[in-house]
Amino acid sequence: MPQDIYDKIMMLAKRRGFIYPSFEIYGGVAGFYDYGPLGSRLKQQIEDLWRSFYLLKDNCIEISTPDITLNEVLQASGHVDEFTDLTVDCKKCKRSYKVEDIIEKSLSVEEAIKKDKVKCPTCGKKLTDAHPVNLMFSTIIGIGEGRKAFLRPETAQGIFTNFHLLYRYAREKLPFGAIQVGRGYRNEVSPRQGVIRLREFSMAEAEIFFDPEDKTHPNFNSVKKKEMPLFDNKKEMKLSLEKAVNDKVINNQALAYYMYLTQEFLTTAGVDPKKFRFRKHASNELAHYATECWDAELYSERFGWIECVGIADRSAYDLNSHIESSGIDMYALRKYDKPKTVETKKIVPKMDVLGPLFKGKAGKIKELLESIDAKDTKKVSVVLDGENIEIPSKCYSVVQTKEKVTGEKFIPHVIEPSYGIDRILYCVLEHNYSETKKKGEEYHLLKLKPRVAPIKVGVFPLISDDKLIHIAQEIDQDLRNAGIATFYDEGGTIGRRYARMDEVGTPFCITVDHDTLKDTSVTVRDRDTTKQVRVKKKELVNHIKEKLF
Amino acid sequence: MPQDIYDKIMMLAKRRGFIYPSFEIYGGVAGFYDYGPLGSRLKQQIEDLWRSFYLLKDNCIEISTPDITLNEVLQASGHVDEFTDLTVDCKKCKRSYKVEDIIEKSLSVEEAIKKDKVKCPTCGKKLTDAHPVNLMFSTIIGIGEGRKAFLRPETAQGIFTNFHLLYRYAREKLPFGAIQVGRGYRNEVSPRQGVIRLREFSMAEAEIFFDPEDKTHPNFNSVKKKEMPLFDNKKEMKLSLEKAVNDKVINNQALAYYMYLTQEFLTTAGVDPKKFRFRKHASNELAHYATECWDAELYSERFGWIECVGIADRSAYDLNSHIESSGIDMYALRKYDKPKTVETKKIVPKMDVLGPLFKGKAGKIKELLESIDAKDTKKVSVVLDGENIEIPSKCYSVVQTKEKVTGEKFIPHVIEPSYGIDRILYCVLEHNYSETKKKGEEYHLLKLKPRVAPIKVGVFPLISDDKLIHIAQEIDQDLRNAGIATFYDEGGTIGRRYARMDEVGTPFCITVDHDTLKDTSVTVRDRDTTKQVRVKKKELVNHIKEKLF
Repeated sequence: MPQDIYDKIMMLAKRRGFIYPSFEIYGGVAGFYDYGPLGSRLKQQIEDLWRSFYLLKDNCIEISTPDITLNEVLQASGHVDEFTDLTVDCKKCKRSYKVEDIIEKSLSVEEAIKKDKVKCPTCGKKLTDAHPVNLMFSTIIGIGEGRKAFLRPETAQGIFTNFHLLYRYAREKLPFGAIQVGRGYRNEVSPRQGVIRLREFSMAEAEIFFDPEDKTHPNFNSVKKKEMPLFDNKKEMKLSLEKAVNDKVINNQALAYYMYLTQEFLTTAGVDPKKFRFRKHASNELAHYATECWDAELYSERFGWIECVGIADRSAYDLNSHIESSGIDMYALRKYDKPKTVETKKIVPKMDVLGPLFKGKAGKIKELLESIDAKDTKKVSVVLDGENIEIPSKCYSVVQTKEKVTGEKFIPHVIEPSYGIDRILYCVLEHNYSETKKKGEEYHLLKLKPRVAPIKVGVFPLISDDKLIHIAQEIDQDLRNAGIATFYDEGGTIGRRYARMDEVGTPFCITVDHDTLKDTSVTVRDRDTTKQVRVKKKELVNHIKEKLF
Repeated sequence: MPQDIYDKIMMLAKRRGFIYPSFEIYGGVAGFYDYGPLGSRLKQQIEDLWRSFYLLKDNCIEISTPDITLNEVLQASGHVDEFTDLTVDCKKCKRSYKVEDIIEKSLSVEEAIKKDKVKCPTCGKKLTDAHPVNLMFSTIIGIGEGRKAFLRPETAQGIFTNFHLLYRYAREKLPFGAIQVGRGYRNEVSPRQGVIRLREFSMAEAEIFFDPEDKTHPNFNSVKKKEMPLFDNKKEMKLSLEKAVNDKVINNQALAYYMYLTQEFLTTAGVDPKKFRFRKHASNELAHYATECWDAELYSERFGWIECVGIADRSAYDLNSHIESSGIDMYALRKYDKPKTVETKKIVPKMDVLGPLFKGKAGKIKELLESIDAKDTKKVSVVLDGENIEIPSKCYSVVQTKEKVTGEKFIPHVIEPSYGIDRILYCVLEHNYSETKKKGEEYHLLKLKPRVAPIKVGVFPLISDDKLIHIAQEIDQDLRNAGIATFYDEGGTIGRRYARMDEVGTPFCITVDHDTLKDTSVTVRDRDTTKQVRVKKKELVNHIKEKLF
């Protein structure tokens, strides 16, 4: 079978230390990959770049919460019930399949099931009884019965469950955003797309909280003329943010702004703009929490259009669910321009009646009565220790009072850009990979942007001469001390060393030669032009720094 | 109950956004904490500092592997059998306890069980039947029977299982080190020490591979005169690295060097040197994989000496186990100065005899025969498809040959410094916290080192004047663009704003005042001296940068 680009990249990735299949010495498991020395650096650089967009440009705050997540959280968020794939089991082959993976591409899952067109890909048997299978990894906290928990399917819930604390941190002003970068988990039924469908993956998510009455964004005006490639499942179009919002192609400014930020981030990371588009979710593919969602899709020669980022309007769904499930006040306050005076009714308990009637319980009942929202005061009851107690009207009086109210409570809406870092990393590799022949040999070139390249500079002595080696090692150390990742190499011909660096995307190579001994200058070679310039040793750090950012 | 320092720090941590109890809106679970906006930054800064020691000073490579780890890996590593705590169950209270947690401090676990001195801390009942409970969180990959897996108890195994690939990446030279920073998990029976005993925690581990015949370290000489506080469970002493190794207090240079690197890292991160020591593990407390281990302990007023780093000599334990379990070649090669010629015996199969005798299997048997180490050629057998087949001597001849051998294979030894980031973070907070009174009010000061402080600079306009606000916001943006974390604040008196920054450890505050309008200078206040100097606006970024690193 001829190798396609995916095979070639994965071979390079393994040989040069980007990506290894996990647990390979024990046969491996689909859906798990390790990042080797270069891959781990590339991933960190992509994540750092992402943070610079959200922390610096958008002024978000960052938090970090556990992977293990209590059942109660995911019950409230809907994941226990809704985070499922329709699955069929082949009793003959003893294997299970996600329906979507094994049907003809022209059919939807619903159609395939209705028309009885689900077949075992191994033995061809018709499979029925499609049933939802939850995709979360489950575990137990503690021993014995313990407490039920799951590995988080998204980092977002860690942000939502802290909303009231973060809102206070943000001094109770909206909009504000909180981000989280970390692992997510999805126990795929039978993943068959290599690094594109992982069971454990790296996510970068931002949850931006808005007043639902005001989904504008302070930075929108400065970018509204920029264009984005949009696909609404009918036609491809290139629209400015302004036009897309005005024409209601995109529902609101906030959504459009974060789409644009995504486009900027992806192209800065090295995604090919020609292999990039936003696709709108059809209403039947929206996640259970979303009212509108756009995917940033990246094109792969092997996989076609891949969903790499989802930018969703989650509305008040999650906060509302957590308020209902936990009873905690997670509202925001919309302040009035000036305090309003409102008339309210208040229940004033009469202890001289309550006391004799309820004895020991009277104190608690008094407190409960005072906390009641006294709209309907004809029939008043309280719940004490699980018991519903009706309170006779002789026990209290209702007083009409006036109160100053500074604002009204509401549940914020959330715009969520959610990034799959591993998929982005793979696409950055694919979009920047090329191969040619040099002297009859295959030559690999990875045109990674300097900003994300795992190694920034290769440092070589031209020949294995102690004097040249000494200077090269000094330069190597100077660059490292300045925080620039280098690779020192004195093995093989200079052409071979350039080739090694080109293959892993190193943008610059420095060679120390005999002229260096005379005038302290070295050559700096540019990967993309292969042009060389001479730079003085003492100016090297600044010369490289300028080219990196 | 009067608050101790832990209570005070945890209150500050929650109020100001360092640390929140996880899942608090659902009642919380012991052993899980969230890092808020400031805590998450502090943790990242500590991790970055750690990386600078291992990647820059020690030239390690970094990798990143999944949290979910296949049963086979942890079976081989010994964790399935050995990673346990002796536990007792109280049938009356329906609770389980780790024996170590509920016995008198003067007793060892063994003694307490032997002397029948294990009592339920709740009801006082004598508890017997202490049994080991595995501390790993377990889960299943895939559906149906799936594959058994655990959340990793350490990041180290991800490095060991890739050793052969990393050795190749390091060009087959020893020593070399690989690091991993990430989550670890430990399903504690009943954790009762807040942030000190987490069920999900952040680790930073380095595995340095050595030739067992040469546990020297290239950097040892440059630091051998430095002193470290050592406690060998008998006496406290302050020894130089050189003396400690010569006197066999520390077994080898490599171990001593990584202890010193640890001391340097911890004090740079802001640990109080007076609350720091190394304690040697007694032989009965060594982990199942270790031959020698030193803990870097940090002193806490609440918890006493806390183990924060373990620096262990894991010898060849892990690689040996994985070689035995997986059959994969994970040896290193000790090259001879010049190739040696060795005489070997080789089995040469006779196909004319093998063919008729074994028919279809003959080809595979030939391959197996050729791969046999022919030391004992009297009785030769091969295993084919699980069946042991004895091969009659007429089927092969034994030939004496001479071969050039370039070196000998061996299993590298591992020195492992393993850091508990959360504990270090807590101790950094405790060691740097102080409180005084100012104008009758409690005043909190957190003297975090500039290198790790989550906010580097507070930026204030002196009063709420549009001109001052405009300049202050410009300065804020300039600093952020230079990668310096700031906090812009225009609320309350200037004293109140200083206090807010002092409480979260911000080392510098910049105030824009009316003189700024005249001469473009601002005041820069130093947290620790409270002295103020005037600096020109355009020189600010460099002024601050110099103070930060």
